[in-house]
Amino acid sequence: MKAALLEQGKMRVADIPEPQPGNGHVIVQPILCGVCGSDLHARDHADHLCDLLHRAGFRGFMDPDQPVVMGHEFCAEIVEHGPATGRSLPMGQRVVAMPFLTGADGVELIGYSNRFNGAFAERMLLDEAALIAVPDHVNSEVAALTEPLAVAVHAVAQSGGDGDCCFAVHGCGPVGLFVIARLRALGLGPILAIDPVAARREMAGRMGADIAIAPDREEQERWWRGQGMYLGLSDTVAAAATGAGKRAVAFECVGKPGMLRGIAEDSPVGSTITVVGTCMETDMLEPALMIQKAIQLRFVFAYSADEFAEAFAMIAADPSRLRPLVTGQVGLGDVDDAFSALIAGGDQVKMLVRPN
Amino acid sequence: MKAALLEQGKMRVADIPEPQPGNGHVIVQPILCGVCGSDLHARDHADHLCDLLHRAGFRGFMDPDQPVVMGHEFCAEIVEHGPATGRSLPMGQRVVAMPFLTGADGVELIGYSNRFNGAFAERMLLDEAALIAVPDHVNSEVAALTEPLAVAVHAVAQSGGDGDCCFAVHGCGPVGLFVIARLRALGLGPILAIDPVAARREMAGRMGADIAIAPDREEQERWWRGQGMYLGLSDTVAAAATGAGKRAVAFECVGKPGMLRGIAEDSPVGSTITVVGTCMETDMLEPALMIQKAIQLRFVFAYSADEFAEAFAMIAADPSRLRPLVTGQVGLGDVDDAFSALIAGGDQVKMLVRPN
Repeated sequence: MKAALLEQGKMRVADIPEPQPGNGHVIVQPILCGVCGSDLHARDHADHLCDLLHRAGFRGFMDPDQPVVMGHEFCAEIVEHGPATGRSLPMGQRVVAMPFLTGADGVELIGYSNRFNGAFAERMLLDEAALIAVPDHVNSEVAALTEPLAVAVHAVAQSGGDGDCCFAVHGCGPVGLFVIARLRALGLGPILAIDPVAARREMAGRMGADIAIAPDREEQERWWRGQGMYLGLSDTVAAAATGAGKRAVAFECVGKPGMLRGIAEDSPVGSTITVVGTCMETDMLEPALMIQKAIQLRFVFAYSADEFAEAFAMIAADPSRLRPLVTGQVGLGDVDDAFSALIAGGDQVKMLVRPN
Repeated sequence: MKAALLEQGKMRVADIPEPQPGNGHVIVQPILCGVCGSDLHARDHADHLCDLLHRAGFRGFMDPDQPVVMGHEFCAEIVEHGPATGRSLPMGQRVVAMPFLTGADGVELIGYSNRFNGAFAERMLLDEAALIAVPDHVNSEVAALTEPLAVAVHAVAQSGGDGDCCFAVHGCGPVGLFVIARLRALGLGPILAIDPVAARREMAGRMGADIAIAPDREEQERWWRGQGMYLGLSDTVAAAATGAGKRAVAFECVGKPGMLRGIAEDSPVGSTITVVGTCMETDMLEPALMIQKAIQLRFVFAYSADEFAEAFAMIAADPSRLRPLVTGQVGLGDVDDAFSALIAGGDQVKMLVRPN
């Protein structure tokens, strides 16, 4: 079968062996699969990504010197039930699933495993127990957004944000836009979105931001003050005496050096900054300023099975909400070009690969 | 009256005007006042400290080009009631208080104000409304520890630590030792203490640490594993499926560059690191590793009035508990030497100044 194979930093369409189902596995045919920022990093800096995951103690993570087929944000269709399956869903059923697969050596991460291929391929394996059936009213494009939305569902949950908070989302790429959509779906706000690119700010508005601005310290400060928030310690201490005031919750969805330092400087005292964007470089902080401002940095990773299911439930409840985020589709032969286009930046938000 | 006056980076005993009480003020005679790490930084790097506090929006913070009398960890004795006071406590009553004073320009921080002197002086002003009477069974030495203990009370509260957690305290200077004592007073544990200095490790044991070790990555890992905690993602994911496992809560009480990065690397997945030690230099982080390990950094500052009162209640309930932390006393004339000795390091924990 055909797959987009990453090998030695090059991605090309190659013939690879058909997947062989183990106990509890089903064979599926990926319909659409999104390109994730981690995929982009893995193509060009696989050694670095693997070093990080290995240091974080992820034993099943891929060996960067071996070939890999990526793709973990998929909607797929069941084409064969493997051994020891309950056949609870029929052939042809469209499904989504968390990108984990139980192999002989334990749990592997689909899309970053050398033993099991990801969804940038004509067929792949999934655990039957992990499948979520996609109902007819949810088209495959938006179903394929379940996985990145689950990251946002988890991030918003971990942020501690609730009805007593004001929200700022720094960066309106896919990660930030999913966070905005999730906040809005929960009825949380007001939401300030910040991004230098006009098209992304426009998309932030469509996802539910109340206002979207280019990065500008003074404008941010005006917004926080307009929400009754205090940027400085003196006003905060005075306000604490009255018990008034909302909490500030910021989301770092850019993942570039300097963001954490800048957000801490520009945010109100006592802000929680939930870090969703993955900065792959070493970054600098001013701990003493973070202490004086009592900042919390919550670095968040992945999601639970419940949060994945909740993400799918949010999509099923309103499939049209996230549809604008799908800005392009390519076949397997164009995956490498799509990666390069996404790395170069521009107006693309979520590009989907159509492997079949 | 005499005071230890800081001017242009030099501290000397000088004659300064007697404090003039405003409405609601009492005049007190400081009995004992501790030297805080921030005082040490203020003597040698006042410009830097002031820049930080001004950027954090603390308008009342001192001007580094003007003279200041420091000292904010005090036990004092009432010697005069000023205008518009209720005289609720008698003359001669020993008191502690949060180091804030309401002046004509708003709230000022006692010890870092150019308008009101701190406790390294023969007399000072306090707000009558802020006074807490020290009962006879609590001696002045331990009463003077209320303020730094309040920082630890706040830090432990902000850490989110409870009976389902394991605790590691990095650094057993005054800050770390107060944190250990607070954890133990709340019945929380087990507590691992980490410090390169043997005398400090011994003190950590006296404050309630279950084990105190020199910095050693493998020994830390063994301890976490011995508590049933997982350092790596793979084991954490496997354990999450069973719902078992405690949460890891670390305290950064060293305040030097590299600590945050190192603690994140050596701590279990999902750790909360409460940052109490103030690193005054720029520091480096690896955000991507912090994301993979889902680390939380909670930078904490000061305390509430309730937490200050709770700190005093903890001291009053068992005055002997913290007594070992007082390792030296000096008169006003030796304050500058005491600062230099503390900066040089060694076995001193908390040095108290006896201004009268």
